[in-house]
Amino acid sequence: MVQTPLLDKVNTPADLKGLNDRELHQLADELRAETISVVSETGGHLGAGLGVVELTVALHAVFDTPRDRLIWDVSHQCYPHKILTGRRDRIRTLRQQGGLSGFTKRSESPYDPFGAAHSSTSISAALGFTMARELGGAPDPALGDAIAVIGDGSISAGMAFEALNNAGHLGKRMFVILNDNEMSIAPPTGAMSSYLSRIYVDKPAQDLKHAMKGALSLLPGPLQEGARRAKDLLKHVTIGGTLFEELGFNYLGPIDGHDLDQLLWVFRTLRERADEPMLVHVLTKKGKGYAPAEGAADRGHARAKFDVVTGKQHKTPSNAPSYTKVFAESLISEAQRDDKIVAVTAAMPDGTGLDLFAKHFPKRMFDVAIAEQHGVTFCAGLAAGGMKPFCAMYSTFLQRGYDQVVHDVAIQRLPVRFAIDRAGLVGADGATHAGSYDVAYLANLPGFVVMAAADEAELMHMVATAVAHDDGPIAFRFPRGEGEGIEMPERGVPLEIGKGRMIRQGKRVAILSFGTRLGEVLKACEALGAKGVTPTVADARFAKPLDRDLILQLARTHEALITVEEGAVGGFGSHVAQLLADEGVFDHGLKFRSMVLPDIFIDQASPRAMYDIAAMNAPHIEAKVLEVLGVAKLGKQA
Amino acid sequence: MVQTPLLDKVNTPADLKGLNDRELHQLADELRAETISVVSETGGHLGAGLGVVELTVALHAVFDTPRDRLIWDVSHQCYPHKILTGRRDRIRTLRQQGGLSGFTKRSESPYDPFGAAHSSTSISAALGFTMARELGGAPDPALGDAIAVIGDGSISAGMAFEALNNAGHLGKRMFVILNDNEMSIAPPTGAMSSYLSRIYVDKPAQDLKHAMKGALSLLPGPLQEGARRAKDLLKHVTIGGTLFEELGFNYLGPIDGHDLDQLLWVFRTLRERADEPMLVHVLTKKGKGYAPAEGAADRGHARAKFDVVTGKQHKTPSNAPSYTKVFAESLISEAQRDDKIVAVTAAMPDGTGLDLFAKHFPKRMFDVAIAEQHGVTFCAGLAAGGMKPFCAMYSTFLQRGYDQVVHDVAIQRLPVRFAIDRAGLVGADGATHAGSYDVAYLANLPGFVVMAAADEAELMHMVATAVAHDDGPIAFRFPRGEGEGIEMPERGVPLEIGKGRMIRQGKRVAILSFGTRLGEVLKACEALGAKGVTPTVADARFAKPLDRDLILQLARTHEALITVEEGAVGGFGSHVAQLLADEGVFDHGLKFRSMVLPDIFIDQASPRAMYDIAAMNAPHIEAKVLEVLGVAKLGKQA
Repeated sequence: MVQTPLLDKVNTPADLKGLNDRELHQLADELRAETISVVSETGGHLGAGLGVVELTVALHAVFDTPRDRLIWDVSHQCYPHKILTGRRDRIRTLRQQGGLSGFTKRSESPYDPFGAAHSSTSISAALGFTMARELGGAPDPALGDAIAVIGDGSISAGMAFEALNNAGHLGKRMFVILNDNEMSIAPPTGAMSSYLSRIYVDKPAQDLKHAMKGALSLLPGPLQEGARRAKDLLKHVTIGGTLFEELGFNYLGPIDGHDLDQLLWVFRTLRERADEPMLVHVLTKKGKGYAPAEGAADRGHARAKFDVVTGKQHKTPSNAPSYTKVFAESLISEAQRDDKIVAVTAAMPDGTGLDLFAKHFPKRMFDVAIAEQHGVTFCAGLAAGGMKPFCAMYSTFLQRGYDQVVHDVAIQRLPVRFAIDRAGLVGADGATHAGSYDVAYLANLPGFVVMAAADEAELMHMVATAVAHDDGPIAFRFPRGEGEGIEMPERGVPLEIGKGRMIRQGKRVAILSFGTRLGEVLKACEALGAKGVTPTVADARFAKPLDRDLILQLARTHEALITVEEGAVGGFGSHVAQLLADEGVFDHGLKFRSMVLPDIFIDQASPRAMYDIAAMNAPHIEAKVLEVLGVAKLGKQA
Repeated sequence: MVQTPLLDKVNTPADLKGLNDRELHQLADELRAETISVVSETGGHLGAGLGVVELTVALHAVFDTPRDRLIWDVSHQCYPHKILTGRRDRIRTLRQQGGLSGFTKRSESPYDPFGAAHSSTSISAALGFTMARELGGAPDPALGDAIAVIGDGSISAGMAFEALNNAGHLGKRMFVILNDNEMSIAPPTGAMSSYLSRIYVDKPAQDLKHAMKGALSLLPGPLQEGARRAKDLLKHVTIGGTLFEELGFNYLGPIDGHDLDQLLWVFRTLRERADEPMLVHVLTKKGKGYAPAEGAADRGHARAKFDVVTGKQHKTPSNAPSYTKVFAESLISEAQRDDKIVAVTAAMPDGTGLDLFAKHFPKRMFDVAIAEQHGVTFCAGLAAGGMKPFCAMYSTFLQRGYDQVVHDVAIQRLPVRFAIDRAGLVGADGATHAGSYDVAYLANLPGFVVMAAADEAELMHMVATAVAHDDGPIAFRFPRGEGEGIEMPERGVPLEIGKGRMIRQGKRVAILSFGTRLGEVLKACEALGAKGVTPTVADARFAKPLDRDLILQLARTHEALITVEEGAVGGFGSHVAQLLADEGVFDHGLKFRSMVLPDIFIDQASPRAMYDIAAMNAPHIEAKVLEVLGVAKLGKQA
C-alpha cells in the first residue's frame, strides 16, 4: 500500500489552495503513486494519466474549478483528475458496472463540465462555455474560464482545427493546453505531428520563467500589470507556434510538462494576464514515472490489472481468437492474393488489427490520423482509382464520417469496403463507445450491402465477400472480443449477396438473427427444447439486401417471427418490418417481434452484463419466444 | 446570341492543345460569355463559374484530362468545365429533370472523376487517386496527376485540414489549387480566412514569371531541368503560405487567377517539375466579368433565370413565405422574449435564414464556417453553459456532425435545438442535397425529441416548443420552399411533447402523416371521398417520442394504417412498426403500410416531380389506400 499523507487530506481542489509549491510537488508524487496503484487493481488507461500528473495538480492549484471549466479531451487521462475531485473513495470502481466511468462524465461530478471519450471535442466545448460566459449564460456554478487539455494526436483532427479557427476568430480569453507526448493511442501521424516535433527539435523545453524575466527587462517603461497583454510579453520568449498564431491564438511554449514549478508559474501568469485565446504547448511523457509503462511501445496506454512491481498484466487466457484478429488475418490472406487491396485506419492501427496488416504490407496500409471524415473520402478516392480499400473503423467512430459515407461513397456507388469493429455493446468503455447505430444509418443508403458476422468463420467469409464485391459499397460488422471458438475454414469463400442461411428447422416460431446474438439464440433454443418448444433459427447475414425469400418463407410458415440484432431500432428489424408490411404479411396476422437495443444509453459493465440490461441474452430470447407463443414461462431464467 | 467561333470548335480539352496562348485568351472570353448566357436561361450557380473561367481554360490546356484527375470542390463552379468537356450540347439542360447535374458527377462524364456537392472533399479524393497511382491502381483511363480545386471557404473545413495533414505527410506529387475569392456562399469567416487575407494584403498578386526568372539567376550553377525540385525554385519568390508549408505542402502564390498567361506559365512549370504536394494560391473574383454579379453582395452566387443585359432575375412571385423565413422570424420573435437564445450556422447564414436573426441579434448569431462537427459541439458547450442554442443546418449537412450529435449532445442529454432545413427532397440540387436520413439517424438516439412540421404554422409552434423544452435535445425538420399559404398564428405556442393531432375522423383506413406530406394526404382524401372512401387522417408531429395512445387507437379502430413521411426507411414508419409489433397489434392482423422514400438516389427535378418518382404525391397515396383496402382503382390519377 502506498503512503499518501498529503493526498489523504485532499477532498476537492479547494484543498490544494492551502498547499505551498513544495507540498504540491509531494502531492504530485503521491498522486502518481496512487494512480499506478489504482490501475493495477482496476485495469484501464494508465499511460495518459501518468503523463499529466503535474499538469493536473498545476491546473487545479491555479484555476478555480469547477467554476473554471476544465475539459479533458478524450479523457483517457482523467484518473488523476478524478482522484483530486472528490472521487478518490470510488476510484477503485473505475470502468466497472455501477462504478466510476473511465471517462469524464457530466452526470458524475460538477468537476466534469463536459464529458468526452471520442477525441478532439474539447476546444469546441471550451469555446461554447466561453461564449456562454460572454453572453450571460447562467449555469450553476457561474462561468469562469474554459480550459481545454488536448493531446497532439487529437489536435490534428479536423474538428479541433475547426474549433481553433472559430476560437481564433472570436478572440475571447480561453485556454488550450496542448499536451504533446508524441503519442495518442498509437504514435501520431501526419504533417501536424511532424510540425510539432520540429518546434522543439533543438530546444526541447524552455525555461520560460527565466526567459520571461529577460524579456521583461527589454520592454520599455514600467511594467503595467494587467494592462499589457500576455501576447506582448510572451512573443519574445517562445519559439515556433506560427501555425497556431496564424489561427489567432497566442502561442506559448514548448515547456516541460513535468516541471511543476514552471507549470505553476505559467498558469498563474496567464490566469492573471491573458485576454485572448491562449495555446500552451506542454511536452509530457506518456507513462511518466512508471518504468514498465515508459518502456512499453504504447507507453502503457491501456492495461489489464497488473503487478505494480513488475508491471506484468494479469490477463485471462483467451479461448478463441478475437474478431479483430480474425479480420486482420483474413484481410492479410486476401491481400496476398490481390495486390489491389489496401487498408485505412484513423489512428487505430492496433485496435483495428491493421498493425498486423502493415507488417505484411507497409505500403498498403494508411493511418490517416484521427480523421474519419478524410479517411472515408480518401477510401472513395482510392476506389475510384481502381484499388480495393478496406476502411477499418469502430462503429462508433464511423459516425464521424457519416456524411462522407453518404455523399462520397454511396451516391457515387464506389466499392469501399467498411470493416466495422466494436459493433454492439462494448463493455468497459461504456455508452460513448457503443456501436449501436451503424446498421440503421447504413442500411437505408441505396446500393449499400450491409452484413453482420454471426461468428468468426462468418467473418472470414465476409472479408472474402467484400473483396469480391466490386459493384458499390459493402460493410460488415463484428463485435469486440473473442470469437465463439468454432473451427475455422482454410480460407474465406464469398457469400452470395443477400442470402441468409438456415441454422435449424423447427416449428411455430422462427428466430431470425443478425450478428453474434446467434449464439444466445441457440442457447435459448436449448432451454426451449426442454419445454417442448423448437424454434426455427436462421442467420440473416445481410441487413441489405434482405433475403426476401427466406424472410417471407419464415413468416408464412410460422405463427411468429422474431428478429434479433445488436443494434438500435431503425436497423435490421425495421427493414424486415418494412418488407413484411409491403408484402401484406401483417394483413392477416403475424406475431412479429423485433429485439433491438433498448432506448437508453447503457453504462460500462461486462458486455454480457450490458446485454442483460438490454434484455438480449439467451434467457430474454427464451422469454420472448414463450411470451409471443402465449406459453406461461416456467423457471426463473430471466 | 453570343458569338463563340473558337469555343464552337472545342469538343473536348484535347482541342485546346492546338490553340496558342492568344487563342486561349479569346477562348476564355467566349467561355465566360457562354456561361452567362447559359445561366441566364437555366438559372443556377453563376458567380463561382465566372470566377474560374481562366483557371478552367488553363488547367485543361496544360493538364491531360481525363487522365489527370481534375476535382472541383463543391463543384458550384463547374459549368465552364462542363462546357469544355463534351457537354456543351446539353449545357442548357442544367439542373433540370433529365438534364445535366448542376454539380460534377462521375456517371455523367469521364472528365468528372469525383463528384461533389458538399464542400471540402476534393483534397481527400485527390490523395486517394494519387496513392492509387503510386500503388498501381488501374482504372480507365490510366492515372495521371490529381488536381483539387478548392475555395478559401471550403479549405477552412476540418475535413480539408485532415486531408492536407495526411497528404503533406505522404509527400507525393499532387496539386491543390486554392481558389481564393474571399467568398464561398457567404463571406468566409474564421481565423483561416483572416490568415489568407493577410498573405496578400500588401502584395495582392505576384508576377511569378518575372520573379522566378530573377530567382533562377541567383541559383548557383547551370539549371538542371527536372532534377531541381520546384520547391527550391519557388521558395525564393513566394510570400506567405507558412501554414501550408508547416503542413508539408510547397506553397506558391498568391497569383492573379484572371491572368491567363501567369496561370499557364505556373501550371506548365509545375507540371514539368513538381515532385511533392503543391499548393497554388490563386486570387479570383467571384462573378468576374459580369457587372451585375460582381456588383451583388453574394457576387452572383446563385441566380434564377435572368436578363443578360440588366441582370434582372425572372422570379415567380411566391404565394406564401418560405419555411426558412418562417423559422427565422419565429426564432427572432422568441429571442426578443428570451435572451438566452443563440443561433449557430455553418457558413449558411442566408440559406438558414439566420442572416435575418443576425440583423436583430448580431452578438447572438455565430457563423462557425464550414464546420458542422465543431458547430454541433460548440452548441453543446453553449447549452452546458446555460444558453439555448439553435443549431440551424440543412438535413444533408447535419450528417457531417452526426457523431457530435450522438456523443456530445445526446449522451450528455444537453438541450441543443436542431432546426433542420431542407428536409426531404429538395429539387434542382438533386440527390446530394436530399434530406432523407435525419429522422432515421436521430430518432433512435435516447432522450431525443424529433418533430416534423406539417405546415408553416406548425413550424412556428415547433420553434416555441424547442425554446420551452430544456430536458435534452430536440429537433424539428421542415422542407425547402414555400409554405402552404395558411393563416399564421400571432405567435408560436409550445406543443405537448409526444402528442399528435387528429386532422379528420374517417373510417376503415387511417393515414398517419409526419411532415408536409399532410397536404398531399388531404388531397388524396378529397379524391377518395368521391369514391366513397373516407380515411381518418392524423398528424403525428413527433417521431420521438411517439404518440402511443393516438397510434394504438388508430390501429385498433381501423382495418388499415398507413404512415407517410419525407424520409427513408428506418425513420418514423419504422418506429411506428416497432411499437405496433411490441404491442402485439400485428398478431391478429393489421393492414399496415409505411410510405417512405424509395431505395434510390433521385436526380434533380422539381420537388413535385421528385416526389412523383418517389411515388409519394396525392395520387400515390390515394392508390395506396385503395390497394390496401382491396378496392380496384378507378381513373388514372397515378
